[in-house]
This record gives sequence, C-alpha cells and structure tokens, in this order.
Amino acid sequence: MAVDLLIVNAAEVLTLRDLGPGPARGSKQGSLGIVRGGGVAIGGGHILDVGASDRVWREHRHSGCEVIDAKGGVVLPGFVDPHTHLVFAGDRADEWEKRMGGVSYLDILRQGGGILSTVKKTRAASAEVLLGSARRFAALAIGSGTTSVEIKSGYCLDGEGELKLLEVIARLGQVLPIEVVATYLGAHVLAPEYRADREGYLELVERTALIARQRGLARYFDVFCEHEAFTLEESRRLLTSARGLGFELKLHAEQFSASGAARLGLQLGATSIDHLEYLDDETLAELGRAANCPLAVLLPAVAFHLGLDRHAPGDRLVAAGVPVALATDMNPGSSFTPSMPMTIAIACRTQKLSVAQAIVAATYNAAWAVGLGERVGCLEPGRRADVLVCDVPDHRWLGYAFGYNPVSVVVADGRVVARGGHLLPAA
Amino acid sequence: MAVDLLIVNAAEVLTLRDLGPGPARGSKQGSLGIVRGGGVAIGGGHILDVGASDRVWREHRHSGCEVIDAKGGVVLPGFVDPHTHLVFAGDRADEWEKRMGGVSYLDILRQGGGILSTVKKTRAASAEVLLGSARRFAALAIGSGTTSVEIKSGYCLDGEGELKLLEVIARLGQVLPIEVVATYLGAHVLAPEYRADREGYLELVERTALIARQRGLARYFDVFCEHEAFTLEESRRLLTSARGLGFELKLHAEQFSASGAARLGLQLGATSIDHLEYLDDETLAELGRAANCPLAVLLPAVAFHLGLDRHAPGDRLVAAGVPVALATDMNPGSSFTPSMPMTIAIACRTQKLSVAQAIVAATYNAAWAVGLGERVGCLEPGRRADVLVCDVPDHRWLGYAFGYNPVSVVVADGRVVARGGHLLPAA
Repeated sequence: MAVDLLIVNAAEVLTLRDLGPGPARGSKQGSLGIVRGGGVAIGGGHILDVGASDRVWREHRHSGCEVIDAKGGVVLPGFVDPHTHLVFAGDRADEWEKRMGGVSYLDILRQGGGILSTVKKTRAASAEVLLGSARRFAALAIGSGTTSVEIKSGYCLDGEGELKLLEVIARLGQVLPIEVVATYLGAHVLAPEYRADREGYLELVERTALIARQRGLARYFDVFCEHEAFTLEESRRLLTSARGLGFELKLHAEQFSASGAARLGLQLGATSIDHLEYLDDETLAELGRAANCPLAVLLPAVAFHLGLDRHAPGDRLVAAGVPVALATDMNPGSSFTPSMPMTIAIACRTQKLSVAQAIVAATYNAAWAVGLGERVGCLEPGRRADVLVCDVPDHRWLGYAFGYNPVSVVVADGRVVARGGHLLPAA
Repeated sequence: MAVDLLIVNAAEVLTLRDLGPGPARGSKQGSLGIVRGGGVAIGGGHILDVGASDRVWREHRHSGCEVIDAKGGVVLPGFVDPHTHLVFAGDRADEWEKRMGGVSYLDILRQGGGILSTVKKTRAASAEVLLGSARRFAALAIGSGTTSVEIKSGYCLDGEGELKLLEVIARLGQVLPIEVVATYLGAHVLAPEYRADREGYLELVERTALIARQRGLARYFDVFCEHEAFTLEESRRLLTSARGLGFELKLHAEQFSASGAARLGLQLGATSIDHLEYLDDETLAELGRAANCPLAVLLPAVAFHLGLDRHAPGDRLVAAGVPVALATDMNPGSSFTPSMPMTIAIACRTQKLSVAQAIVAATYNAAWAVGLGERVGCLEPGRRADVLVCDVPDHRWLGYAFGYNPVSVVVADGRVVARGGHLLPAA
C-alpha cells in the first residue's frame, strides 16, 4: 500500500495500542502508548506505520505524498462521539436562561418548554431543514476533532417522524466526511398523544423499530429509562423486542435516579449504558466484575450546561474495572456543545478522570460504544486513518487547557477534512 | 470621515448604548441596546454609524469599502479582558492533574509546585521567550474576540525581573493588533528570598513601582490581599504609596477569605476589586450603595479550572447595584483559558448572570475596569471600532452554546485582525 499522507514531528503520538482485546478497563483505561518524537504514515485510508518521526519520514517519504508537520504537537486517534441528539429544530436558549435564573424545570414544562417544545418544532421541520441544521453542528464537531459520531432520533415520537429523522441521519452519513452511527430512540419520552395510552405508544415504538430495521436505518435501539419516561419493565420489554429484531442496545440509565437501568443493560447484553449520575455502589461493583460489562458512556457536559452538581463517578468506575467512554450528548435542552475537547476538559474536573483516562474514553472506548472498536480508536497499522494533530505541547493540555479548540488538523478515513477548526470545502 | 468597512445583515447589533455615564449598574447591566437587522459603518478606526442594515448599506456603500456580511449573526463590541497573567514561562499541567486527583495545594507546594514554580521558570526565561509564549496565548484570545487586554507582571518578584515582565507587556502592546493595558503586580506573593524580611520585600515593591512609573511601564498597581500573600495593612500601605506615584489601583480581593480587601479598594478609590468569591453580604451592600463603587471583576474560570464550588455572587452584585465585569484570569496555575466566550458561558452558569448581563460585563464594564470606558465597550459613533461578528442566531447563544468559538470576525481599531478564530498574518 502506497503512503499518501505523512504526519511528522509530533512531540507525542498517542497510539493507544495494546489496550485490547475489547474495551479498555482498569489500568488500561489510562494507557496511551506514547511514542515521543513520533510520526504516522497513512495510505489508502488506513494507518500504515507509526513510530519515530525520523524513521517514518525516511522510510515512507516520496514526492507524491502530502506531509503534515505536527510542529511539536500531539497526534492521537480521532474522537468518537458515541451519544448525540444532533438532529433537531429550533433551540432552547430561552428555557436554558430561565433555568439558570432559578425557574424550575417543572415550571418550564408548564410554560410549554422542555423536550416537547423541541418535538413540536422538529415534527414541523422538513428533512431538508433538519439536514442543514445538523450539518452545521456536525461541522463544528468535526472541526473540534470528531471523526465518528453516533446520532439518535427521538424528537418526533411518531412513526413517520422518527423515520424521517433516521433518514436525515442516513443522509448525514453520506454528506459528512466522517462515520455516522444511527440509533433509533423512539422511546425517548412518551409522545403527547399517548398520555392515556402507554401500551399504544410502546406498540408504535415496536412497529417503527421493525420498519427502521427493515430499511437498514439504525444499528442501535436506545430507551430513556427514568421517571417521566419509561419504567424499568417497559424498558425491558422494548429492549428485548428490539434485540429480537437485530438491534444492538443502549440505555439512558440512572440519570436522575437509581432506576436499575444499568443492571438491566448488563442483563440484556447492551453495548452501552449512558449517563450514570445516580449509579449506586452495589451496581457499580457488579458492573466492574462482569466479563461482558457494557461501556459506561458518561456525559459530563450535561451537568455543566444545566449547572447541576451531581456527577457520574468516573474515577470509581475506572477503579472498579468498568470501561468508561465520553460523549458530548449534544442536544438543545441539556448539553449545547458539539465539542469533545470541551467534554474531556469537563470530565477531568467533575468526574475525576485523569487526562489519559479521558483520552482513552473519548477515542478507543468510545469506538467500542458504537461498534467501531475494531476499526478505529487507536493508531495501529490496519486501522482506519482517523487521526488528529493538536497544537499542544503534551497530552495533558487536552484537559488542562480549555475554552479553545486545540485541534489543528483532522484526518478522517485518510484524508484531511478540517484545518484550524474548520471543515474544508472539499470535505 | 470616509467609511472603509461596513458590517451588514446582522440579526442583532448589540450597541450597548445609553449605559453611561460611567460603568453600568443595576438594570443597566443587562441593557444591550439591540438593533435587529442591523449594520455598522466604520472609518478611520472609529464607529461612524450604527442602525438598520439596509440604511447603513444605502448611505455608506462605496466601491472602496470592505464589506462583511454578518449572515444573520450577532454583532457586538469586542471583548475586553481586564484581568490576565499572560506573561509566564512553563505550564502547571502536572500540578493541575495532581489537584484534580485529590492532592492538596499545600502538598503541591511542598513538592515544589504552586506559583513559585512558575516564578522560578519565569525568572530563568529571556524576554524573547516570554514574548513568544505570550503572543501565542494572545493570538488565541484575539481569535476568540478579545480586543483589549490587561496583563499583569508578578511572576518574577524581584526588581529586575518584574521590570523585564513589564517591558515584555509593553512590547506585546506594540506587536499585537489590540490594546494592552499593563499592571504592576510585584505584590503577587512574597518573594522566596524575603520570607524572613517582609519589610524588605515591601520596600523592594515600592522601589520597583517607582521605576516602573518613571519608565511609563504600568498604568495599574495591583496587590494580592490574602493569607499567604499580603495582609490588609500591607496592602493599604502599598496601594497608598502606589497611588502617590500616580498609579490607578486594583486588588485581588476576597478570593479565599473575607479579608476586607474589597472595602479597602472602595476606601482608596480603586478602579477594580477582582475575584470576590468570599465577599460578605454587608460589604456587598455597602459597595452597591457607593457612588464611586469599583468595578467588581469576576473570574469564573478559576472555579471551573480547579473544580471549586465557591462562586462570586454575580447575580446579587448586579442586584445590589455593583457594576460587574468579567475576565479570564488566564494564568498557568488557576485558569488556563484565554477565551472570553468560555468565561461568559461559565459566568452564566456559576455566577448566575443573565447572558445580557455577562455580555455587558465582558465588554462595556470590562472597559471601565481598565480605564478604557470612554473609548471602547459600546458601538456608538466616535468609539474605537473594536467589533465582533459572531456566528450565532441571537445573543443568548453566547451563554447557551459553549465549548466552541462563536466569533467569526474580529475587528480591532477598524481593521479585520482575525477570521474563523485565527489571527490574520498581517495583523
């Protein structure tokens, strides 16, 4: 395979090699496999070689290949954002400002705010409008280093609308230069029309899941298991039937209460259990002991966005042996950021992950959380060439410095797709 | 005056007009003077006209003028960052990570960390190295919309070294395309050589202040009034003698304890009192009643950076009538961000400022905190043309959205100096 892109002169190449097999757990969660003074050779969309910059340059340099000088920066695998709600209409800036001013979420719901206000606008929006809006947020995410993204439906809550959202997500996968993984989240909250008919809504979700599966529109099925959303038993029923349809499983678990959703995820062989702010100690220990423990996808930007002081126990999850991943949870209500670097910076502070643990969580483990664990997430020959160059002198700055974009070059599938925070026109 | 730059098609132009005279207090703190569908005409480095985009275009358009299409974004005055420690050598990523892992600050000091580790490296660094490092951080700040910045000395703590730092700050004022305001902070902490001779250090600070003043190297004199730094009486003595030399005054006040520094600032006619995490209610009310109340410069990124949960009472300060400004406090120990947008986003969440209040705090009031209140900070004809174009649909997104740079164009002194987050080569 001919080399067509060389990255040289990195102070550190974070290879994240030797973390497998499977998600990184315990001490492996913080193992970056650093090559100091390193370089990376890329060809045909794949990593071909990683090692000392001088050697990589000497062995692979030829007149036809593009060269990126990392200028003493840090090179690492592209970020994988394994939990977003990127497709929606409108914003909820008004509601957010009221909440910051002390108005309760219940009062906001009474004033017509909350998730159902987004549902109303998203139902009314055309696929074209939704695609345009999502592309703009995705461009910000890619400029900040995201090279694979999971996107959920869940803001229409009716059959046709949810399929419209999944089709928009599929089109995003075609028009964006990064990989998009689709999740069907009809079970986000109960649709307003079904307030008196929970059974009717569960059946609608099941029917829509079948159609989504038949059309190949979603790999994952997700359910929000929580008061005001779906009970543990409803979640079990929906997840079980979805598994029967061939979906892999995700859960919004233990976000506002210890609901038992995490244990349900373990029992059903879910790929990930997401949130975990209220995870109890006993379940945490049980997860850590389980051979098939789901990825714990933590969403620290939510507590920041809403000014909450309850955080998922990142450090204790790692210590117990639970594989931890990080995601933005980008959505208009509870986390209005597309940035994985921001997410890492928050996670280090509120969930007490070390920077190294947070980096593994945002790359290698996040890849496992969306079924890409064997294809991306580390810089080993044969992996897809999703690679970032960051303008920081060592990897700790990815947690220590914050509030600006440290990512100077984004390579996705072997091509440079963003520079200086901006998606390239050709990309 | 001929128009040489037109900004058109803004969804909102935040003029911040009619806030004066003097700093904005109380209800004026949240008054943005919004022109919807607005434009701005600029010439000779000054604002010439602000109004409806169509009219501004019609009246001022000519073949020689540059036109910036705001594309439905938000136009506002450039950010003024009134409290930074931008000139230093090395970083403290290592120490920060230890603190996040639970090591106490006292243990870090015992291990050779803390501010004195930066002092050691900064003393050893040449002016050229310090200038290069500060320029890189300043470029990030400008790319994020900072068009005036205050920079303090304070990392050498000896006579020659502090003058070296002030000279670097003066050179930054020459090489950067934005205004730099210099503050002498010899009274940052006691120099290690003077541990047994506090009087000797106070005299050194006074001698150095005199030289700095004679050389025109600093407009402000600042003192860190706190346990482990300088007592209230030492602060009073230093500030009084500095005032006698012609300095205007600032204090690091009530950061870790209710020291009385805020009241001292009021008594001495200080321009600003900075931090205020531990301000007591009685002093807060007294400040609010005072005709000559200093600017309260809040530094919310510090609590974020260090994971602290004590915050300055932003909402109560505004309610009491204290004029509030915001700053990054950019420094290697307690706030490693150059970004005013990030600072605004944090302030809205932890100090409970509305977005409108935070915007006034980061522009108009911040200008008063560094003596530029009559020259910048609002978009009125005659003001210096420091203007931002932000890629957000309304001003609330400046608080609501976070973790990416919303500023697409930065105009300083009438010239475009940054686009897409990056300082232009010519700037």
